Amino acid sequence: MSKQRTAFFISDGTGITSEALGVSLLTRFEDHHFEKVTLPYVDTVEKAHETAAKINAAAERDGAKAIIFDTIVQDDIRKVIKKSAGLMIDIFAAFLGPLEKELGTQSSYNVGRTRITKNTRYDERIDAVNYALDNDDGARTKLYDQADVILIGVSRSGKTPTCLYLAMQYGIKAANYPLTEEDIEDQKLPKSLKQHRNKLFGLTIEPERLAMIRHERRANSRYSSIKQCNYEVEEVELMYRRERIPFMNTTHYSVEEIATRIMVKAEIVRRC
Amino acid sequence: MSKQRTAFFISDGTGITSEALGVSLLTRFEDHHFEKVTLPYVDTVEKAHETAAKINAAAERDGAKAIIFDTIVQDDIRKVIKKSAGLMIDIFAAFLGPLEKELGTQSSYNVGRTRITKNTRYDERIDAVNYALDNDDGARTKLYDQADVILIGVSRSGKTPTCLYLAMQYGIKAANYPLTEEDIEDQKLPKSLKQHRNKLFGLTIEPERLAMIRHERRANSRYSSIKQCNYEVEEVELMYRRERIPFMNTTHYSVEEIATRIMVKAEIVRRC
Repeated sequence: MSKQRTAFFISDGTGITSEALGVSLLTRFEDHHFEKVTLPYVDTVEKAHETAAKINAAAERDGAKAIIFDTIVQDDIRKVIKKSAGLMIDIFAAFLGPLEKELGTQSSYNVGRTRITKNTRYDERIDAVNYALDNDDGARTKLYDQADVILIGVSRSGKTPTCLYLAMQYGIKAANYPLTEEDIEDQKLPKSLKQHRNKLFGLTIEPERLAMIRHERRANSRYSSIKQCNYEVEEVELMYRRERIPFMNTTHYSVEEIATRIMVKAEIVRRC
Repeated sequence: MSKQRTAFFISDGTGITSEALGVSLLTRFEDHHFEKVTLPYVDTVEKAHETAAKINAAAERDGAKAIIFDTIVQDDIRKVIKKSAGLMIDIFAAFLGPLEKELGTQSSYNVGRTRITKNTRYDERIDAVNYALDNDDGARTKLYDQADVILIGVSRSGKTPTCLYLAMQYGIKAANYPLTEEDIEDQKLPKSLKQHRNKLFGLTIEPERLAMIRHERRANSRYSSIKQCNYEVEEVELMYRRERIPFMNTTHYSVEEIATRIMVKAEIVRRC
């Protein structure tokens, strides 16, 4: 058994990128156990010293160097951390050189400029989140003109989280409409959806998984029975095929994977 | 004026990490204009060849090498892309060597294992999203026992998107409760919140910004007037101080920044 190591994901921002990157690199070392620590907002030299102290303490305890993944932009902050007892996966140091050479310019850092970009993105995304909430679960169909995409599917097939993710990450306005038993029995697309046919994207899910999810909401009901789930899933898939609506099976995917795959399949362009 | 370049963010997954990383590196070259292209799900050698063709076409058009940021795990896919007309910021190639040396093992890649981890995470996050939706806007207060955090603040101070982000990204169960004019006039914490005092986190916002946001919802109303916004913000901030509730001003931050800062300040531990 190999020693335990501590992996630090450090950033001057939220730490989300350095963590995602670090985890994907560490996944390739499956025989090792990594204690994972994310430290966001290390944005001053003082905080860098505190961080270095944490790294040193972990290395001392583990009896082995820590592994450090960082996406800190400022050189002076990064230098302090580099002196601690860790192997630093220093992305900026490694790649700014080759980039400068290729682009034929020195790199710079201008805080102000990034901030402005962020605020525009923020507004677009909040608008999109509000749109998703207002147009969730077929609550309204009047605003479908504004939608970038309308997700359809049976109850609990993953529509709402996917809409919210599309909004939050890409500023995409995503409405969703639950296909009810009535819609299924009619064997045709509800009227409010017909005129927006080119915006529709269907979700489907394995009946066993659907029954499990529904069971948590309403145990031992007709709604959560495998028979009912089988019926609904089979019928909506038939409808998708008949109406030539693009669709995907969400069973084995995470929310971000579902969202990204829909964008690719439906050729939706991000808003921000 | 420097030439336009095309920047490619390529991944065998969603592309979110390589994009975030690439953008933060490119921000340091503000004199350049980059046409940005994200290509997710490049997970076969065949798709790698298609991708290489796109890169070559962009380089031909720009009259300059493309810049490629990739987080593709499989070596054979990465090698195909490396042969295209781009400068490849090849994170795996750069850092697997030093990691192998430090850990004293060869790296491997096992698809199956990552998948399992993802599914657990998925369930936790979907549960948390459903929790956030069910406990949004003070809809219910019975389930506050289950909450990891309860965000409070005046209407439109950013509670809902923040709760959803905490759920989606970290699996944190976040409820939110809007402080109404009634609560403010009473000058005390609503009863349903009192017993969960240690879970409360306050949001505040600059009155000018609040008025702008409210104006979009209900133009020229008392609700969106600067006078009303000033009053509400001033009073809730007083309440936060009096009741010793930790709080932050959301005005200049993106949703992910607000969420991450709350986690740090309130010492909330992520669920996944």
